[in-house]
Amino acid sequence: MHILVTNDDGVQAPGLLALAQEMRKLGKVTVFAPDKNWSASGHVKTMDRPLRVRETTLADGSSAYTSDGAPSDCVALPLLGLIQEKIDIVVSGINPNANLGHDVTYSGTVTAAMEAVIDGLPGIAVSLDSPENNKSKLDYSAAASVARQVTRRVLKKGLPEGVVLNVNVPYLPKDELKGFMITRQGLRLYRDELDRRLDPRGRPYYWIGGQAPTGVDEPGTDFGALRAGYVSITPLQLDLTHHKMVDELKKWKF
Amino acid sequence: MHILVTNDDGVQAPGLLALAQEMRKLGKVTVFAPDKNWSASGHVKTMDRPLRVRETTLADGSSAYTSDGAPSDCVALPLLGLIQEKIDIVVSGINPNANLGHDVTYSGTVTAAMEAVIDGLPGIAVSLDSPENNKSKLDYSAAASVARQVTRRVLKKGLPEGVVLNVNVPYLPKDELKGFMITRQGLRLYRDELDRRLDPRGRPYYWIGGQAPTGVDEPGTDFGALRAGYVSITPLQLDLTHHKMVDELKKWKF
Repeated sequence: MHILVTNDDGVQAPGLLALAQEMRKLGKVTVFAPDKNWSASGHVKTMDRPLRVRETTLADGSSAYTSDGAPSDCVALPLLGLIQEKIDIVVSGINPNANLGHDVTYSGTVTAAMEAVIDGLPGIAVSLDSPENNKSKLDYSAAASVARQVTRRVLKKGLPEGVVLNVNVPYLPKDELKGFMITRQGLRLYRDELDRRLDPRGRPYYWIGGQAPTGVDEPGTDFGALRAGYVSITPLQLDLTHHKMVDELKKWKF
Repeated sequence: MHILVTNDDGVQAPGLLALAQEMRKLGKVTVFAPDKNWSASGHVKTMDRPLRVRETTLADGSSAYTSDGAPSDCVALPLLGLIQEKIDIVVSGINPNANLGHDVTYSGTVTAAMEAVIDGLPGIAVSLDSPENNKSKLDYSAAASVARQVTRRVLKKGLPEGVVLNVNVPYLPKDELKGFMITRQGLRLYRDELDRRLDPRGRPYYWIGGQAPTGVDEPGTDFGALRAGYVSITPLQLDLTHHKMVDELKKWKF
């Protein structure tokens, strides 16, 4: 099996290294990740500028590819032929923050996995629901082990066309995880606030600030699973059609 | 009614002007759009840098706001309070290219409308299925008129939570449009190719090239409607859960 490992935090992120190391237990791993942090970048396809690709080395001495493209570009480039050897699956992560509710449309981690699915491969996004403080010294070992378990199942069972798995792992030691829960996308509650400031020349500028978002931790949702100490696996689809609304709109007079 | 008009092509794009002029027939219009082209940018939330906002003038002399943020930021900023007056609806476009099939996850036009919906307002994305040649002299009048018709209906009937309308208009004179068709998201067929070149110093760089994408124009889909000369209206949802797959995954052993 040949596994492409990518992320949206950049090729030197510790979550990527932890993921790549664990994936090597399942087969050959190629790491291809952005050369900078693209968090909250959404689903980007770079068509207005050319991309550079170079080989680099991860902290464990293993080799990796990096590019000045977006996370989705780092999936598209190898699949378009920059990597000769056939790729079987794309695993993206490990993101140091959970990707829950509406986050999935903003998330570079998730959209990299979506890019794989658009290109006909299974795609899995893995994120860690870590606490707000101490982001610099996170322990990714439980999440990496979970990623391996999920990837192994997907390699065995396959995924139907157009489905991405969005995996979120509670920040707990491996033996304290309660198990796996298959969930639906929950409701994110953003608490963004406009933060207006003046620059040294007295001109205004704006931060999108405010507190970190929360979510409605209803049972059956991604939020609910994490709150209860379970790994959340949400199958996402790339067909965004709201079928009930199709029927409703047909009754409208245009 | 107070209508926020935005786009992903930049504040001076002719499609934005055509849309703003037509929306003024329905109520007060505020234009708030990016200061550059963000096509294929996906759903971006800018949190790593502050944003500037300035007032500018459209080609018809009317005033508009512009920002160095992404299309979604240009929706978030006014809704977070940069514009004091309550906004009732967000209309994004008119994009000079259709947004069909998987395009919706990449599209800045569509994700700007999604941002509105996440923030609790109705959001409509409007795109023109124009021919590949002669993009610089497009006639947006039919699409703008369609945008007004759709917006007027939505203002009257409302949209359920979490639904975006993705409107695509054939490139035809108004009186040659066959009517409206409510559709599901169709299947995009991308034909991207890796285009490897050498720079003047002999180092490789890569374009994501290839021919423009096509699509499967099945009846009932966005592609099918356009092909038949109809305006396509696809209701999209922000809940990406693949519910059938939830049941299937529950049978897997993790």
